[in-house]
Amino acid sequence: MIQPGAVAPAKRKDRVPAEDVLKRSMGPLPGSKKIHVRGARYPDLRVPMREIEQTPTTSPLPGRPAEPNPPLIVHDTSGPYTDPAVAIDVHAGLAPVRDAWIEARGDTVRLERLTSDYGRGRLHDKALDALRFRHIRNPRRARPGGNVSQMRYARRGEITAEMEFVAIRENLLRVQRKELIELLWRRGQGTVHPGQSFGARIPDEVTPEFVREEVAAGRAIIPANVNHPELEPTIIGRNFLVKINANIGNSAVTSTIEEEVEKMVWSIRWGADTVMDLSTGQNIHETREWIVRNAPVPIGTVPIYQALEKVNGKAEELTWELYRDTLIEQAEQGVDYFTIHAGVLLRYIPLTARRVTGIVSRGGSILAKWCLAHHKENFLYTRFDEICEIMKAYDVSFSLGDGLRPGSLADANDAAQFGELATLGELTKKAWAHDCQVMIEGPGHVPLQLIKENMDKQLAETYEAPFYTLGPLTTDIAPGYDHLTSAIGAANIGWYGTAMLCYVTPKEHLGLPDREDVKAGVIAYKIAAHAADLGKGFPGAQLRDDALSKARFEFRWEDQFNLSLDPDTARAYHDATLPQEGAKTAHFCSMCGPNFCSMKITEDVREYARQQGLTEEAALAKGLEAKAKEFKQQGAEIYHPQPAD
Amino acid sequence: MIQPGAVAPAKRKDRVPAEDVLKRSMGPLPGSKKIHVRGARYPDLRVPMREIEQTPTTSPLPGRPAEPNPPLIVHDTSGPYTDPAVAIDVHAGLAPVRDAWIEARGDTVRLERLTSDYGRGRLHDKALDALRFRHIRNPRRARPGGNVSQMRYARRGEITAEMEFVAIRENLLRVQRKELIELLWRRGQGTVHPGQSFGARIPDEVTPEFVREEVAAGRAIIPANVNHPELEPTIIGRNFLVKINANIGNSAVTSTIEEEVEKMVWSIRWGADTVMDLSTGQNIHETREWIVRNAPVPIGTVPIYQALEKVNGKAEELTWELYRDTLIEQAEQGVDYFTIHAGVLLRYIPLTARRVTGIVSRGGSILAKWCLAHHKENFLYTRFDEICEIMKAYDVSFSLGDGLRPGSLADANDAAQFGELATLGELTKKAWAHDCQVMIEGPGHVPLQLIKENMDKQLAETYEAPFYTLGPLTTDIAPGYDHLTSAIGAANIGWYGTAMLCYVTPKEHLGLPDREDVKAGVIAYKIAAHAADLGKGFPGAQLRDDALSKARFEFRWEDQFNLSLDPDTARAYHDATLPQEGAKTAHFCSMCGPNFCSMKITEDVREYARQQGLTEEAALAKGLEAKAKEFKQQGAEIYHPQPAD
Repeated sequence: MIQPGAVAPAKRKDRVPAEDVLKRSMGPLPGSKKIHVRGARYPDLRVPMREIEQTPTTSPLPGRPAEPNPPLIVHDTSGPYTDPAVAIDVHAGLAPVRDAWIEARGDTVRLERLTSDYGRGRLHDKALDALRFRHIRNPRRARPGGNVSQMRYARRGEITAEMEFVAIRENLLRVQRKELIELLWRRGQGTVHPGQSFGARIPDEVTPEFVREEVAAGRAIIPANVNHPELEPTIIGRNFLVKINANIGNSAVTSTIEEEVEKMVWSIRWGADTVMDLSTGQNIHETREWIVRNAPVPIGTVPIYQALEKVNGKAEELTWELYRDTLIEQAEQGVDYFTIHAGVLLRYIPLTARRVTGIVSRGGSILAKWCLAHHKENFLYTRFDEICEIMKAYDVSFSLGDGLRPGSLADANDAAQFGELATLGELTKKAWAHDCQVMIEGPGHVPLQLIKENMDKQLAETYEAPFYTLGPLTTDIAPGYDHLTSAIGAANIGWYGTAMLCYVTPKEHLGLPDREDVKAGVIAYKIAAHAADLGKGFPGAQLRDDALSKARFEFRWEDQFNLSLDPDTARAYHDATLPQEGAKTAHFCSMCGPNFCSMKITEDVREYARQQGLTEEAALAKGLEAKAKEFKQQGAEIYHPQPAD
Repeated sequence: MIQPGAVAPAKRKDRVPAEDVLKRSMGPLPGSKKIHVRGARYPDLRVPMREIEQTPTTSPLPGRPAEPNPPLIVHDTSGPYTDPAVAIDVHAGLAPVRDAWIEARGDTVRLERLTSDYGRGRLHDKALDALRFRHIRNPRRARPGGNVSQMRYARRGEITAEMEFVAIRENLLRVQRKELIELLWRRGQGTVHPGQSFGARIPDEVTPEFVREEVAAGRAIIPANVNHPELEPTIIGRNFLVKINANIGNSAVTSTIEEEVEKMVWSIRWGADTVMDLSTGQNIHETREWIVRNAPVPIGTVPIYQALEKVNGKAEELTWELYRDTLIEQAEQGVDYFTIHAGVLLRYIPLTARRVTGIVSRGGSILAKWCLAHHKENFLYTRFDEICEIMKAYDVSFSLGDGLRPGSLADANDAAQFGELATLGELTKKAWAHDCQVMIEGPGHVPLQLIKENMDKQLAETYEAPFYTLGPLTTDIAPGYDHLTSAIGAANIGWYGTAMLCYVTPKEHLGLPDREDVKAGVIAYKIAAHAADLGKGFPGAQLRDDALSKARFEFRWEDQFNLSLDPDTARAYHDATLPQEGAKTAHFCSMCGPNFCSMKITEDVREYARQQGLTEEAALAKGLEAKAKEFKQQGAEIYHPQPAD
């Protein structure tokens, strides 16, 4: 419906040097290659994973053969941007891999034109030609009266391509590569610790049928709008790997479309499982189109932000009709989940008046203002069934917003917050009656001792719908470090059962995150999510830790870097102290110096035992009197001479 | 015993431009001044605290009076370096404030000369003149047969100056400034949350008698060597504020004496309660003298490191005599606590052979090597009573080292680790029989679900002696971010009951921390310790959070910066987005833009209620139909106009 070429190449070139911006965020991660796993039910599925190669283990002793170390497979959110086999063209968008799956289901229609008035207006506004994505597709929608949500299929007993996709993705080929994994775990001899799961029921292997059951029960969601065919689906639920979300967004103050697209690419490079576009400035509509067309991860939005822009920031002028048009506008662009603050009820608003920090959710405060101005109940609440009708026609998932979340420790777990949570439970039931997918948003600022109560109440009052929390921050006193104050809370609440953790950057409360802040936020949250996976005892979660620790112990520096969450930083920090290339193969590290490494000493202890032709344990346990002298001599040769100062 | 002026001024000037290095780490923190609180029992005590001033609350509405905000008092570890009234001269060292207290007890003698052979050798080595601290004092020691440990005094029922000092320090004038605190808490109206203390017994007010009881029972220590009169004492125990330690140290590879002194000053500026000098390179003895003479915080060391240097890194050549001389050498310099790996027993060593990362403690691996080489029991264990005799003669506290701590998640909570812990319990009893002060070191690398077991076992097996843990790191996969992976574990184990948290810097496992790394580590650990204090419900811990959140809510940007753990970074991050000076008084922040701030909206809601002459709650709860129209009009005036784009 838009003429290719309508945007003059010259002009585009002026405005969108996006490939150049993107280049710095593309390409394989060090030591890694992209692999794809085919589906069994759906053979055309190509589920992406990242395989990290490892070098063999060499001994500092002469004459001992090198032993290979198996490659490690890790979850890969980065999409085609890290696949050298794929030519990226942000003007064309990513390949619509899901199109065939959706088409095959035969339950959608392609519309002749956009349903949303606003969307049509933007499309035909010549002044926006230069800004507009070139290949806007006609949107899909469920056939009249239909429901294309993953929950509907699941409840009907159908296993969709999306379900098989996420099942394969969660397993990381643990069954297929059992021998390689055993090799790693045989030689890395520590304990694989059982988890403490607080009631999560995580299977040894995630099957498509298990996915279907979890989606049908509402315990997990697969956000996957039929208008987002570029998506590589992911699953969000307590019995799956903990996911993380990164927020991006242009703002009234700074930022451009190109930068926003690149922030998305950059954040998924480091591990964001979903990205929320929280734009509040001009050209939100166009920015979103660029982001969705280039996004392999689910995109979430808060539609009330855009609705408010449409009434020039005057909350009291918001109407259901305008909001409804906004939902449809965004649904037809392909947004996968909407934050909807339908639990901000009139009766909860007075409960916030004596808080230290009142209402800090932007969406919550907009709705509160509307409610007070009109003295009417929140229209998101009163129109909830109508919203469900829209959501199921495109399969947009609900992210039921916590508009009354606490903005400070003092306000944590108060009547306003928990009142709203109870309403979110009521709305969850309603949405499920429509077979709509739902997750529940949570706080915010919560001290350590009150975090568990949030999780327990959420599970009880919203019927085990997936929980999606912002942090929580465990103290208010460290602006500039709130990625860290909140990673503490996020790790704990993830361990207790939160399905997805919304990142916080170091600039939270202070300013707009830049590229480095986005990365710092994503890495902090990958750490929190992984700590939670380990805590819960997710099968195979400890593999990466064990591989990295074994590499560390064996002074395989390059492997240690490559296995880490951020190889670039690990390498740079190492090189800051010991820049010489030789230092990366040296059997010591800078912390202790060449003559004084505890790992080296332990290795010598083991090596000695091996040389005696004994197992290490036998050699050591048997008693070593007779061998003490030999050890001493042997030891003196093994140690590297200390260099002159 | 050393002639002042023996070091030629010119030469010193060449070698020690320490004032210049130090300048960048000195001066008051923004918006803060140093105050001192006098003792009641000991009127000459001057207990340092930091008072952070706050600006008044102003309303965006015309005609409303400004309301004052009380200053906030926070724990101050920074010593005289942040006191403009004190002239710092690193060549002279800090004022020996404790000298009079120690002298008054009359139970020490000043020695005619150093007891340690090594110390005497260094003192008389002309080649070291240029390096040597100028004003080395003759050391003190207990009178023959005496015991000058704080535990001995406590058990005798004596409340020392040190005990009153730490009691005053822990309370932060909460009783004296009750009205001011109530002012803060009355206007910041959120909830002061009760803690979950896991058995800690924290009183509302810490009295000198409570301190005495805790020290007598072994549940807390006051590391305070009689040869460290420059010390501002602090207390480490589960029923007191959680403390943090920063490690510094020159290394075989890099670093100078001047840099090490400045690292100490820098780390206490940001909140390190104690500093460990882990030097392993040349001139350890001289470096330590500079550090202790200029340190207002307890200094810890691992004497085996220096002992190993004395035998050129050959662990098997270590002897008790050499080690003993090293203990005395360091005790006479004023080191306040020693890490002693006396629990690395021969029988535990084989238990580490099948670990993924063997023995990662440097001290542990040195002792393991010695044990294997000689096939003898660890001499720190066999000579433990003799060590106690030294410790109590100077009041050096034991930090019983966890030489077998896990270096990877795989090795966490294994038989070697817990075997050693049981032995540390046995040694604790022994040390207590000598009235020696003891804390117990702990891991390391531990996944979330295994952290609590560490705390529980430590309390049970070492009889509630204070626990002092390194992190623990909750995952191994993030080298470059281990301040963060470990802050998660540290916050949790601190909450569960750990008394002091040893920091980890971003360079852990990779390289030597520089100035920024030290700060990052300290701030991460201040966050963890504070999150733990809040979790335990330490009285008044939430005051700073509430003050900062109130400032945030009221757009008092400067106050928000000044109340934060790192005002410099908070201000810099704010200015990165909105550098204009006016932005620091603006009633909006960059994240949401001028027309869209949720805090602003909430403030308007409250303000509206106030204008109606109603309490906020009444105004809101009563129902607002009649007022809806007014609100709308009022609201339109209150909001700042959106600037043209």
